Amino acid sequence: MDYFVSPYNKKVNLKFPEEVKIYDTTLRDGEQTPGVCLRTPEKLKIARKLDELGIHQIEAGFPVVSSEEERSVKAIVKEDLDADILVLSRTKKEDIDAAIDCGVDGIITFMGTSDLHIKSKFKMMDREEILNVCINSVEYAKDHGLFVAFSAEDATRTDLDFLKQVYKRAEDCGADRVHIADTVGAISPQGMDYLVRELRSDLKTEIALHCHNDFGLAVANSISGLLAGANAVSTTVNGIGERAGNTSLEELIMALQLIYGVDMGFNLKVLCDLSRTVGELTHLGVPKNKPIVGKNVFRHESGIHVDAVMENPLTYEPFLPEMIGHQRKLVLGKHSGCRAVKAKLDECGLNVTNDELCKIVKKVKRSREEGKYINDKLFKEIVRSVKGPFDP
Amino acid sequence: MDYFVSPYNKKVNLKFPEEVKIYDTTLRDGEQTPGVCLRTPEKLKIARKLDELGIHQIEAGFPVVSSEEERSVKAIVKEDLDADILVLSRTKKEDIDAAIDCGVDGIITFMGTSDLHIKSKFKMMDREEILNVCINSVEYAKDHGLFVAFSAEDATRTDLDFLKQVYKRAEDCGADRVHIADTVGAISPQGMDYLVRELRSDLKTEIALHCHNDFGLAVANSISGLLAGANAVSTTVNGIGERAGNTSLEELIMALQLIYGVDMGFNLKVLCDLSRTVGELTHLGVPKNKPIVGKNVFRHESGIHVDAVMENPLTYEPFLPEMIGHQRKLVLGKHSGCRAVKAKLDECGLNVTNDELCKIVKKVKRSREEGKYINDKLFKEIVRSVKGPFDP
Repeated sequence: MDYFVSPYNKKVNLKFPEEVKIYDTTLRDGEQTPGVCLRTPEKLKIARKLDELGIHQIEAGFPVVSSEEERSVKAIVKEDLDADILVLSRTKKEDIDAAIDCGVDGIITFMGTSDLHIKSKFKMMDREEILNVCINSVEYAKDHGLFVAFSAEDATRTDLDFLKQVYKRAEDCGADRVHIADTVGAISPQGMDYLVRELRSDLKTEIALHCHNDFGLAVANSISGLLAGANAVSTTVNGIGERAGNTSLEELIMALQLIYGVDMGFNLKVLCDLSRTVGELTHLGVPKNKPIVGKNVFRHESGIHVDAVMENPLTYEPFLPEMIGHQRKLVLGKHSGCRAVKAKLDECGLNVTNDELCKIVKKVKRSREEGKYINDKLFKEIVRSVKGPFDP
Repeated sequence: MDYFVSPYNKKVNLKFPEEVKIYDTTLRDGEQTPGVCLRTPEKLKIARKLDELGIHQIEAGFPVVSSEEERSVKAIVKEDLDADILVLSRTKKEDIDAAIDCGVDGIITFMGTSDLHIKSKFKMMDREEILNVCINSVEYAKDHGLFVAFSAEDATRTDLDFLKQVYKRAEDCGADRVHIADTVGAISPQGMDYLVRELRSDLKTEIALHCHNDFGLAVANSISGLLAGANAVSTTVNGIGERAGNTSLEELIMALQLIYGVDMGFNLKVLCDLSRTVGELTHLGVPKNKPIVGKNVFRHESGIHVDAVMENPLTYEPFLPEMIGHQRKLVLGKHSGCRAVKAKLDECGLNVTNDELCKIVKKVKRSREEGKYINDKLFKEIVRSVKGPFDP
């Protein structure tokens, strides 16, 4: 058995859509993390690894941002990956033309639809004009043979009647998908359920979710939306992106697969490598306790945990690290117990009496409490101080 | 208006318990993060700040771990904070005696109840013996006048009949609360809803949730459990703790207050300071995109966002940073637009023509794409290269 989750997850009857698609936006929203900048070779490297994972669609960038950005998108298109390549575009002809020029499979064209966005961003426009602009851009892009997703920015804070109207008109104009953008991450899983059901009953087209993580709910909101009838979810590797970031790719697909039993056929073994690559290239690193991929996720220090993990790792790990290319590590510190210390002694080929073992455990704890990290050198010093000299 | 969340959150009828209690375990489970070690003055500092926030209960440590740990707990007890002080104890007399010796208000006594934990950890015991051990420890602690919470470790992977039996017996013996520990973070919000409802119908005592974040669902699972009838939630500052950590204090209380309208009367202004203090003292830092408290959460770079935020911050922020003692910052980079650059020029007291502004924006983007960070010095160099020399 390589994973063991709660049996209560299966006590509830849940229905996911037959096919769940992931479109990853690490290279667009992820790159919009303040301070982050990915150049062409870096974007290419990440795109290849996303493709290796088996991602369905890659949002490769926002071509009008700069000429370097346009070059990056073109280079990714040239790779001829299995994933479809999409880019972001405003509802402007120049943006769509730039996308066409890059040779992408499709676009995500977006427009703020909440009254707040309309008032603060498009001062001269009313709802009717917004509607027309959206429709024109969908039609223009469809005329050029693109896959067209229409995204209502700030959808979760948009008046329902207007939102339905916009999506309906986008659908009528041939949009292949509509996107619900929870732009400031301010919806609850229950609210998302309500909203998606309302929209699902009105629309035939695919519905995608683009969730932000401002309250730590992006993964739960995405899952809730899928259960309510959405078909696709936007993610970023390590959950990077504007502010608190987006739905975390690794959290979402592992939760879907292991917690909910939705197998999307991903090559999970590359997950850790993908995460580290993005951490390095964005200079954001990977937080130690980042779910799924963080360094600490398979590290154990406390005596109770180490004892049990040595017997059966699934006591304190929901799944085995090998599944995603991760590695387990036992570390010594303040919370260490006899068994972890004994294992370390065995590793060093050292025999001690029970009395000596207790003394070594105490000294390990005390050393850590004095601010020292228990590396091999210090560990051997401690053993020497208890047991007397031995060969290194 | 200092926040603006999705109106769809209120479309669903949700019932929270009249009183929601938060017991924070930063000083116990948080400190069990591999490699972390907090000494007495550090634990004291964090405890004081938790109290300033208005936290209900503080799990201050695990006294039998070491004599330094015991000293820390005693020092926190001496502070006479408003928060109740609890400690962790195994179901052993020595652990409970250590807690009594520290003068704490109560204990959380725990025992693994899943077959996997019983088999791997307590090889010589069967369910009946587990039950007896649990009961004895609850009775012993109650006899000594403590608030007693009984925690079933790995409860979410424990057979329901046995779990009900254990909790029921704990309740009968006077336990003030039972804890559902989702020890490996492997339950879904829907599974948690099912489990808590099952237990709630059986028990009169308070139910608390101790969730881990292995799949990024700890906050959602905690909220789901509260909606199903639980009364208390365990948190850690910055979500630190074993592996992927625990339910994040700041995410949970901000989601409860702003998304769900559950006001627990916390002094939210200290949240950022608390988060940074824990980040520093644990040497774990605060991940840049950590929801609520991360540095990037109120940083804006992309032209579209900056333009709108300057008009009305709530376009791209669910709440204002002042609410939690955070600060907004606009940064220049690859995604910058004219307005952000213009604002920076104004800040420097520099006037430029529209043509010069466009050139400066392009040079800012290009410089960032060449790997340079746009600090004040570089910005002024760029302006000089476009506009000619000016006084610094």
